[in-house]
Amino acid sequence: MLIALPKLPLPSPESITRALLELGRALGDSKVLTGDACENYARDESEATGLVPAAVVLAANAEDVRRTLEIAESTGVAVTPRAGGTGRTGGAVPVVGGIVLATDAMKQVKEINAKDLLAVVEPGIVTGDFHAMVEREGFFYPPDPNSLGSCCIGGNVAENAGGPRAFKYGVTREYVLGLEAVLMGGRVVRTGKRTVKGVTGYDVTSLLVGSEGTLGVFTEITLRLVPKPPEVATVLALFDDVRHAGAAVSALVAHGLVPRCLEMLDSATLDAVRAQKVAIDPRAHAMLLIEVDGESATIATLLEKIADVLGRGEGLIDLLAAQDPSQRARLWEARRMLSPATRKLAKYKLSEDIVVPRSRIAELLDGVDEIGARTKVRYLTYGHAGDGNFHVNFLWNDDAERVAVDQAIEALMRLTISLGGTLTGEHGIGLAKAAYMPLEQSEDLMALQRDIKRVFDPKQLLNPGKIFPVRPGHGAC
Amino acid sequence: MLIALPKLPLPSPESITRALLELGRALGDSKVLTGDACENYARDESEATGLVPAAVVLAANAEDVRRTLEIAESTGVAVTPRAGGTGRTGGAVPVVGGIVLATDAMKQVKEINAKDLLAVVEPGIVTGDFHAMVEREGFFYPPDPNSLGSCCIGGNVAENAGGPRAFKYGVTREYVLGLEAVLMGGRVVRTGKRTVKGVTGYDVTSLLVGSEGTLGVFTEITLRLVPKPPEVATVLALFDDVRHAGAAVSALVAHGLVPRCLEMLDSATLDAVRAQKVAIDPRAHAMLLIEVDGESATIATLLEKIADVLGRGEGLIDLLAAQDPSQRARLWEARRMLSPATRKLAKYKLSEDIVVPRSRIAELLDGVDEIGARTKVRYLTYGHAGDGNFHVNFLWNDDAERVAVDQAIEALMRLTISLGGTLTGEHGIGLAKAAYMPLEQSEDLMALQRDIKRVFDPKQLLNPGKIFPVRPGHGAC
Repeated sequence: MLIALPKLPLPSPESITRALLELGRALGDSKVLTGDACENYARDESEATGLVPAAVVLAANAEDVRRTLEIAESTGVAVTPRAGGTGRTGGAVPVVGGIVLATDAMKQVKEINAKDLLAVVEPGIVTGDFHAMVEREGFFYPPDPNSLGSCCIGGNVAENAGGPRAFKYGVTREYVLGLEAVLMGGRVVRTGKRTVKGVTGYDVTSLLVGSEGTLGVFTEITLRLVPKPPEVATVLALFDDVRHAGAAVSALVAHGLVPRCLEMLDSATLDAVRAQKVAIDPRAHAMLLIEVDGESATIATLLEKIADVLGRGEGLIDLLAAQDPSQRARLWEARRMLSPATRKLAKYKLSEDIVVPRSRIAELLDGVDEIGARTKVRYLTYGHAGDGNFHVNFLWNDDAERVAVDQAIEALMRLTISLGGTLTGEHGIGLAKAAYMPLEQSEDLMALQRDIKRVFDPKQLLNPGKIFPVRPGHGAC
Repeated sequence: MLIALPKLPLPSPESITRALLELGRALGDSKVLTGDACENYARDESEATGLVPAAVVLAANAEDVRRTLEIAESTGVAVTPRAGGTGRTGGAVPVVGGIVLATDAMKQVKEINAKDLLAVVEPGIVTGDFHAMVEREGFFYPPDPNSLGSCCIGGNVAENAGGPRAFKYGVTREYVLGLEAVLMGGRVVRTGKRTVKGVTGYDVTSLLVGSEGTLGVFTEITLRLVPKPPEVATVLALFDDVRHAGAAVSALVAHGLVPRCLEMLDSATLDAVRAQKVAIDPRAHAMLLIEVDGESATIATLLEKIADVLGRGEGLIDLLAAQDPSQRARLWEARRMLSPATRKLAKYKLSEDIVVPRSRIAELLDGVDEIGARTKVRYLTYGHAGDGNFHVNFLWNDDAERVAVDQAIEALMRLTISLGGTLTGEHGIGLAKAAYMPLEQSEDLMALQRDIKRVFDPKQLLNPGKIFPVRPGHGAC
């Protein structure tokens, strides 16, 4: 196990027995997995392994969710909500076993409203499927996490997912107008609105978005759509050095250019992609992938300006642009290959997703080099450079290297905070980064959040062990 | 008094005496107004009049704010925070007297960071002054509440202010990256980040934005900037009927057009403006003001499309477009005249700012006519049609009409909710709309928010009487 589980009290065997009995009675046995069938639910796509849950509820509707949270509260058994299970920080990992509440079967798209530019969906719809559905009708839902082929909207909302297009369009929170959420004990609240504007009461919707399954379980999500951009163009720029690529990012932003994506791949990342037989100019030690959208007149102007800015900077080796979808896909090939390509580089990989202010990108890259040199841990860096959001991946083969890896990660976190950055841009804190929270947030701010958590979940039974560092003797949160 | 104050227990004379003594000792007498000097602080720009506060603190810095909230908590005296005092729903009105904490002297702009596209400001900077400051450096801060000449950023953040440009650019919350806030008792928390992306912990920043001064007092605000759009064009379209103007709004949105402003004025509003000697074609019974921005190529395309869509609809009388700043100002004249013009129409005016989904605009306009006919209360309607956010103004001269006005307002609120809308788009709930909260939000959702309020302010001393309907026997919140 690459990520240690916090030590929390486990539900008692008696409470588990009672919960299983009541769940079976309330939902029917076909919706409640037990025994071996639960084994697949101890993990998500993070490097953490939880305890095998005693029961997995396959919720088919909001009432199943409500009953589950009612029974969990009354029996005192912890619940871990799960949508696609593609999270990278352990958000869906059941730290104390208990019940996993799976909402991935709730896939209904209840409404796509062309006049009001919104959609109402259940949490289990796969993000990529939802993209296709709204784009067929001329609309656009921008958030595009890399796992969009398998992640679900419910998980995207819980983690406030981002993606390359966030540079222009923002992250999931910017698209969630309203939520139906079930709280521990079975209280159902409908928050938010069906309009873009609205300031009635506190913004409970924004509080729930990104709460990593610790405040409530979503049963219905109202999403804002935007008009589908008429044209898209992709630009691939190769550089001799990652610092020149970083300077190009700063120059583009300084010129007021807002591409929809502005991605960067460093030298080690390009090597990993080359190892997968993708041809990339051997002189290139960094790549930028830039994507613009809009009216064709706008695109022509933007492409011209981008070429001009990049051409005037240092270290540009080659520049390719494409508007045709299949040619665009070819330019994205290296970026899309990344996850499989880097996975093959070593036995173990831990991927961070820190963010720094754009003006500090060069210092970040230098600092990562320094950390790599000092700890001797292999690393590669790529990510959403336009947002200052980088995936720094640490790679190793030998268990004995683990101490050095932990030192490298902690050094990266400290560097990030010293540069005015934040621990995570899109993956969330989960289990993986809870220990680093005090580097970024004061005791007072964490205490305030723990108090908010207690309002929603007084018994600390919903997704325990996540976000906040576990303090011995303080229970789950 | 047009808006009744909720009945809440007043601070005891002994606690007031102690608070005055401690404030004077901690801050110096020059920062603590008492007696007659406090009279101007019983009101803001709403129709509510509070009790004259026992003391007004003129905070010069964050430490003054901290000491004030510390003393207020320890002496048990309520505090009402105030920035520009331009709110329309009584957010800055001291319901129980006590202390008014004024932050409008904290006007420093601490940083305008070109590379990271952000600014760090104190709460008392006037919004229009901040606009001018960032635009001189080539940046743009979109939120543009109508009161931008006198309102302050701190109040904009507290109320989550909008404005015409929200249609394209969103409201204040979309621009607040981080906050330094002081909580009751004097705890200081720094929330958020200096990066656009970031998902560390709960979104306490978004919770504080729009909390109407009931959760904390801002002492520093980190704002996201965007590049200043190179060109702007304004279009004025006159229609024979407000329903044709409404249909034009729907048609523009259906064609995927996103102007930065999309404002509508109805017939009664145009008459009010005409009465101020502004020449408007006598055949016109509705006006749309449309503004687009971007590259000049984009603008040309957009203007062409807008003219095409409007020309194909019904009832268009005239269409004027301008890119020159002074000509643009002329087109905006009618819109800018509105507040003074409508104020002169009657002795009393109450202005609502309800929002409906765009597809329901026609039903809203019909419903408002029906309410006017039934209650015989004079009304006029204008607002941010693109967002479905309308200012419905009720006008009357005779105190005896007040009962009918209350009936009209309640009917408007019920209509809004029945159309899937929300009570307020930018003014907040404050005192003015607290009684209508239960029309929109469930008891469970309100209880959850009251619990959140209690986390920040257990003694219910910060801006009591706002947002939530006061329940007899339940104290301030």
